[in-house]
Amino acid sequence: MGSAATSPPPSGKLTQEELKRVAAHRAVELVETGMTLGLGTGSTAAHALDRLGELLASGALASVAGVPTSLKTEAHATRVGIPLLELAGAGRIHLSIDGADEVDPDLNLVKGRGGSLLREKMIEGSGERFVVIVDESKLVPRLGCTGAVPVEVVPFGAVHTLGLVRKVFDGLPGFSARLRTVPAKAAGAEEVPFVTDNGNYIVEMFFEDGIRGDLRDISDRLLRITGVVEHGMFLGMATTVIVAKKDGTVEIINKEN
Amino acid sequence: MGSAATSPPPSGKLTQEELKRVAAHRAVELVETGMTLGLGTGSTAAHALDRLGELLASGALASVAGVPTSLKTEAHATRVGIPLLELAGAGRIHLSIDGADEVDPDLNLVKGRGGSLLREKMIEGSGERFVVIVDESKLVPRLGCTGAVPVEVVPFGAVHTLGLVRKVFDGLPGFSARLRTVPAKAAGAEEVPFVTDNGNYIVEMFFEDGIRGDLRDISDRLLRITGVVEHGMFLGMATTVIVAKKDGTVEIINKEN
Repeated sequence: MGSAATSPPPSGKLTQEELKRVAAHRAVELVETGMTLGLGTGSTAAHALDRLGELLASGALASVAGVPTSLKTEAHATRVGIPLLELAGAGRIHLSIDGADEVDPDLNLVKGRGGSLLREKMIEGSGERFVVIVDESKLVPRLGCTGAVPVEVVPFGAVHTLGLVRKVFDGLPGFSARLRTVPAKAAGAEEVPFVTDNGNYIVEMFFEDGIRGDLRDISDRLLRITGVVEHGMFLGMATTVIVAKKDGTVEIINKEN
Repeated sequence: MGSAATSPPPSGKLTQEELKRVAAHRAVELVETGMTLGLGTGSTAAHALDRLGELLASGALASVAGVPTSLKTEAHATRVGIPLLELAGAGRIHLSIDGADEVDPDLNLVKGRGGSLLREKMIEGSGERFVVIVDESKLVPRLGCTGAVPVEVVPFGAVHTLGLVRKVFDGLPGFSARLRTVPAKAAGAEEVPFVTDNGNYIVEMFFEDGIRGDLRDISDRLLRITGVVEHGMFLGMATTVIVAKKDGTVEIINKEN
């Protein structure tokens, strides 16, 4: 749970894409000259990149640098003129801005359905503030309610690792897991494993009614599996969630310490 | 602690290499026709591969197949005529045989100084029995006494991850950690990161007097670091340790259940 502030609605009815932009712009208002930023990946984070580019071009912001969470974000940020840093040389990351696939009432997240969970977690977990920008549809009562919870796994033995991931939720009604695949580029082949920026595969876990139980315990059990690199549950990491609502209002939820 | 059996010494004095071979041959005596084996990596495991090849060639063993723990072992096993299986298609692994860098009194191991810890842990952790073959010099009072404890990390952000590994042992006197490097093949460059079979890097941790504290807790703290894929502490995995001693005797230590 967190403290919440709601702002008055803008005029007119907004599409989901507009809501994402509203949340993103609100987050970029937190950026100050001289900051080093963690730059998220995905359709909502893309609006933040565009806005940052505008403010840097107009001179409203200066001396801002970003650490991109994916190759895609790196390309996008370069295109809109955001100076980039390597994680190792970045020093202190003041603020990260990224979308999320799901946000629960304790501000735990599911992220990485787009496949960039490892770099996102590494960068956003190492910063001082992590601001999550979502439209209202991403708020869930429990993680895993609305789709896949991704787990990044080493390609070697991936099918074996998939079996061990299934064992963690053995006997849970409605649970399933599979290796994420994409259509093959080569003629003949039908589906091939999706490959992350780090050269790994993704196991997708599905829950009928979300994950019940102690999330940190489940996290440890997944991480203990040899072959599991990381998972898409971001527990206790978000410091602020900015929610753009269908009625046009923006809710800002801050983590309680 | 485990139950121990000691066999009488062979005649003459043995070199370390001969001790490794003695332990390896003793382990291969446990292999039965029809078994699927996990095939270890390293100088001691290599003796087991050679012996298996001999027994298969002579017909003393048949219908044995192996799952190799490294590309090097795959090549070696192929050369000596051991049929190989992929981990995913191997079904039940009856017995794994591998060396270790260190063995503590509870049969916990340090492995992976050779760089194959992830595949070794995956395969040896999924079998029914895991027989470790060592010469006496590998017995230690505590893990981390005699050299590096390796941690496999994702190349992206490896220096950042190294910093987080250091934090786990923050303030511990005599602790140090570094990225494992090898001489560069290209002219001009001096050292480049060592790359594992999985395309990852290795962080080496050094302890002045071994790791003190709860090893499982330390394991969890390492695994929770985003960017850490696996580490070289094999806790509670070995079921039998075969020790070839300088005096020529062989000690067989079985894990107590």
